[in-house]
Amino acid sequence: MAAYAAQAGLPALVLVPAEGVATGKLAQTLAYGARTLLVRGDFDDCLRLLQEAQERLGVYLLNSINPFRIEGQKTIILELLQQLSWQAPDWIVFPAGNLGNTAAFGKALREARQWGLISRLPRLAAVQAAGAAPFVRSFEEGFRQRYRVKADTIATAIRIGDPASYERAVTAIKETNGVVLSVADADLLEAKAGIDVSGVGCEPASAASIAGLRALRRRGTIGRSESVVGILTGHILKDPDVLLRQHQRTESPPPWANPPREIEANIAQVERMLRESGN
Amino acid sequence: MAAYAAQAGLPALVLVPAEGVATGKLAQTLAYGARTLLVRGDFDDCLRLLQEAQERLGVYLLNSINPFRIEGQKTIILELLQQLSWQAPDWIVFPAGNLGNTAAFGKALREARQWGLISRLPRLAAVQAAGAAPFVRSFEEGFRQRYRVKADTIATAIRIGDPASYERAVTAIKETNGVVLSVADADLLEAKAGIDVSGVGCEPASAASIAGLRALRRRGTIGRSESVVGILTGHILKDPDVLLRQHQRTESPPPWANPPREIEANIAQVERMLRESGN
Repeated sequence: MAAYAAQAGLPALVLVPAEGVATGKLAQTLAYGARTLLVRGDFDDCLRLLQEAQERLGVYLLNSINPFRIEGQKTIILELLQQLSWQAPDWIVFPAGNLGNTAAFGKALREARQWGLISRLPRLAAVQAAGAAPFVRSFEEGFRQRYRVKADTIATAIRIGDPASYERAVTAIKETNGVVLSVADADLLEAKAGIDVSGVGCEPASAASIAGLRALRRRGTIGRSESVVGILTGHILKDPDVLLRQHQRTESPPPWANPPREIEANIAQVERMLRESGN
Repeated sequence: MAAYAAQAGLPALVLVPAEGVATGKLAQTLAYGARTLLVRGDFDDCLRLLQEAQERLGVYLLNSINPFRIEGQKTIILELLQQLSWQAPDWIVFPAGNLGNTAAFGKALREARQWGLISRLPRLAAVQAAGAAPFVRSFEEGFRQRYRVKADTIATAIRIGDPASYERAVTAIKETNGVVLSVADADLLEAKAGIDVSGVGCEPASAASIAGLRALRRRGTIGRSESVVGILTGHILKDPDVLLRQHQRTESPPPWANPPREIEANIAQVERMLRESGN
């Protein structure tokens, strides 16, 4: 938003929680010249404030509450289907926080079928972080009630306790015979390590896709022969701090940690390090 | 390199200076699983070590000393010319450190003319950081001598004192009637702020292009009506720390600083901040 506002010559206002915003996102926002307010509160406080600002201060809201945002997010699905030559996969698995993607994916799939682009709907699997899983709770109770929680997870992009697009997301899950589940932060970080070391990489929240897929395979919800698309929503460089912290952790490092080693500038030390790593 | 090695299933070895590597680059390298050695020395020490490792440890060198790297970097120029419908600009301005791009750009332009893709050569303007400008010194003395310096600049990507592609870069500058100049770190950061706030953004070293272009306009080397392409070599998220440090600096902040402001979660404070920023 900050980048496009800058290119269009429009003033931009960005509200973020004072704590827990990914370094890359904050750095870009400041660089692009957006007026950036660190709110002493969480994502949900920021969203509430923005809604008030929209009503009282003449600010145009560009969060996914804005229906044009949802229209834009639909292109994720349309491009995905196009790349699969309009053969819909059995499942689409993706991270779920504010539920904008869930809502947009449901709408895109419904329209794609209406327009005759695909003949059947894939099932959506929306994956929340265990510490920010109000939608999971609603799903497990048959969507009888909407919940709000105090969100807490390492995955800042889905650290959301009161998802704005709840109603439209319920429709999306119901229409696609979808499922909603949660994954622990540890599983999410392990999944992220696998995505990273494949040479692709992603921000922490995105790894909910793969962690969720693993859980659904374990449960047998997703069968061995079913086709699945997992969606990575954020670039690896959005959150370099989580990365460096995990890989350089000295106390009980995770099994996938790849800490850098410091050496003197001589070839004997390079040789020793190569031998140690088995290359 | 780490990403492609991971995707190809090849073990990767990365040597970087123990101090002064951009956060984003280190984070990605670790994430992609490359064996990463922090060498107590500078870029030039790392390159020397890698050359020894190539000879003695059977390591394949993927630095721009490797001619295939230069072939790849040529595509920057070929794509640029294609996007300009094969109408070469009068100037191409770009950051210069290890001189791989300078060498590759010269080769690409020579070949493009030989192949009849363009009818005349643009002039190359290679821009170094003032604290890492051995090529500038050589240029100013008519390339009578090659120099080595102890490099010191905020622009980590061109913090290089003994450029590996010196000889090929000399040919490139001579053949294109090019120029070589240096810019101070302060000018570089100011240029970067302008690139960032345009909504494009870049890493610090890349801004040498625009800082250099400004200097060449001031000197009259580049005329008012000449066409210029400036090349940005690195993404803004490669080095988020420099960004945050500059924008959040409390002691003599630069005029373009855009510090975030911390507020309580209430609309009155949002309103006050908007009024203060004149929106």
